[in-house]
Amino acid sequence: MQQAAERCNQILATKINAQPEISRLKTAMSYSVTNGGKRFRPALTYMTLTALGLPEEKGDDIAAAIECIHTYSLIHDDLPAMDDDDLRRGKPTCHVQFDEATAILAGDALQALAFEIIADSTQLSDAQKVAIIQVLSKASGPAGMVGGQAHDLDSEGKQLNQSELEAIHNRKTGALISACTEMACIAANAPEHIRSTLKDFSLTLGLAFQVSDDIIDITSSTEVLGKQQGSDHELDKATYPKLLTLEGAKDYLNQLKDKALTLLNQAQLNSSEQLVTLTHFVADRDH
Amino acid sequence: MQQAAERCNQILATKINAQPEISRLKTAMSYSVTNGGKRFRPALTYMTLTALGLPEEKGDDIAAAIECIHTYSLIHDDLPAMDDDDLRRGKPTCHVQFDEATAILAGDALQALAFEIIADSTQLSDAQKVAIIQVLSKASGPAGMVGGQAHDLDSEGKQLNQSELEAIHNRKTGALISACTEMACIAANAPEHIRSTLKDFSLTLGLAFQVSDDIIDITSSTEVLGKQQGSDHELDKATYPKLLTLEGAKDYLNQLKDKALTLLNQAQLNSSEQLVTLTHFVADRDH
Repeated sequence: MQQAAERCNQILATKINAQPEISRLKTAMSYSVTNGGKRFRPALTYMTLTALGLPEEKGDDIAAAIECIHTYSLIHDDLPAMDDDDLRRGKPTCHVQFDEATAILAGDALQALAFEIIADSTQLSDAQKVAIIQVLSKASGPAGMVGGQAHDLDSEGKQLNQSELEAIHNRKTGALISACTEMACIAANAPEHIRSTLKDFSLTLGLAFQVSDDIIDITSSTEVLGKQQGSDHELDKATYPKLLTLEGAKDYLNQLKDKALTLLNQAQLNSSEQLVTLTHFVADRDH
Repeated sequence: MQQAAERCNQILATKINAQPEISRLKTAMSYSVTNGGKRFRPALTYMTLTALGLPEEKGDDIAAAIECIHTYSLIHDDLPAMDDDDLRRGKPTCHVQFDEATAILAGDALQALAFEIIADSTQLSDAQKVAIIQVLSKASGPAGMVGGQAHDLDSEGKQLNQSELEAIHNRKTGALISACTEMACIAANAPEHIRSTLKDFSLTLGLAFQVSDDIIDITSSTEVLGKQQGSDHELDKATYPKLLTLEGAKDYLNQLKDKALTLLNQAQLNSSEQLVTLTHFVADRDH
């Protein structure tokens, strides 16, 4: 994880430094992108490539692009008109640190930069770039992440059942997480059966990540969270502990972990040790 | 212009209809995209292709993608944290018609859709798609449109000279307009000297468009404008009439027209009649 984060941070710093200095835009982009995230998606990308027998360099541009998309979505989700969060990873959110207009534009700029990074890549063929942009645009667009966020906002205060909640999360966070393994498979020219098994794996892992986040949101302190403790719970949002009780959510998380590990086994990868460890990291975080 | 608009509207309707129905997101995307715009950028794209001897179909995906980017930028520019406009083309702006969160997400979704449309195109080769996405992402990103908007917001209330104002407009509107001829040249595999001459032409045309808009903003009624008359002028924004006087702005617009027509002549295209007419349309609008 640490190595993946350092790798990705370096690429991102280079890409953002290459942008012109305009108003506070670049500073805001840089502030949000370097805001100490775990770099879970880059780690998943690099580890998938390693599992497929490819060098990590092959994943640099994919990891940077997906982190640009992820960061832009956090900046926009934190806006007053959306989740209205003041803290993110223990630091003021982008619109608090700068202003709302700058935060909207920094998000917009990071989305464009994600596609620019893939198109400019020297690590990928044209065919791979096109396939990756197909995956990334769909995963982040109306059928994926943005659609999930719209659905999520719409469901505040509504009584959702588990399958409705799952449909939201599969779009809101799952689509981008499964895009990581999809794009790594494209970069590695992996056969279709591995790509589809790893897609199921990463969707399961993404769901586990969400269930785990929901649990942590109510069991950890504000200090550990880096945002207001219980903020999702209080916002009258549907969460797994609310739906299944805290114990039920923990049981479900364990089921998801087992499913993810079974899928990894089925994929018969060259070396799946890192992905196994990552799965445990997601499911066994300090609850 | 009318034909280009109809062509582009049809493609956009198809692309947006193909998206899943999520909350009010798709409705909001559709509302803003079909909000009666002139489709100036699609027209410029189609006309450039025609001038290069190619059929219009070749420009369908480029035109749709650029209009997605243009529409998303208008939705975000109209937000309360940005220009805070209630009317756009005579209808309520997206955040007024729906809500702020939906408007932010509809903009985000349209940006992703733009890149999806190019990547999914059946009209373009992989190499053309990659080159087009390079142009489109840079023209719309921090070095282009988004950077220009950040710079523009930052300059409100400041005294700008003409070259500073021009630098803002070249980014804010010029970059995307010149991307139209750039992308059409890529689709047509046009030689470099044509591509660069047409880039100069479209940057000049874009500037003329802006000067003309500034003039119209203070000489037309709210009814004709479809937004509050004099709204840019009153916002304490730098405009050409403010900088050069109204007569000076009209003179400058004529100089830009002459320069654009000269550049068109230099490009020695197969048939430049439509582009000549478009240039007159921009410069000779009802002032």
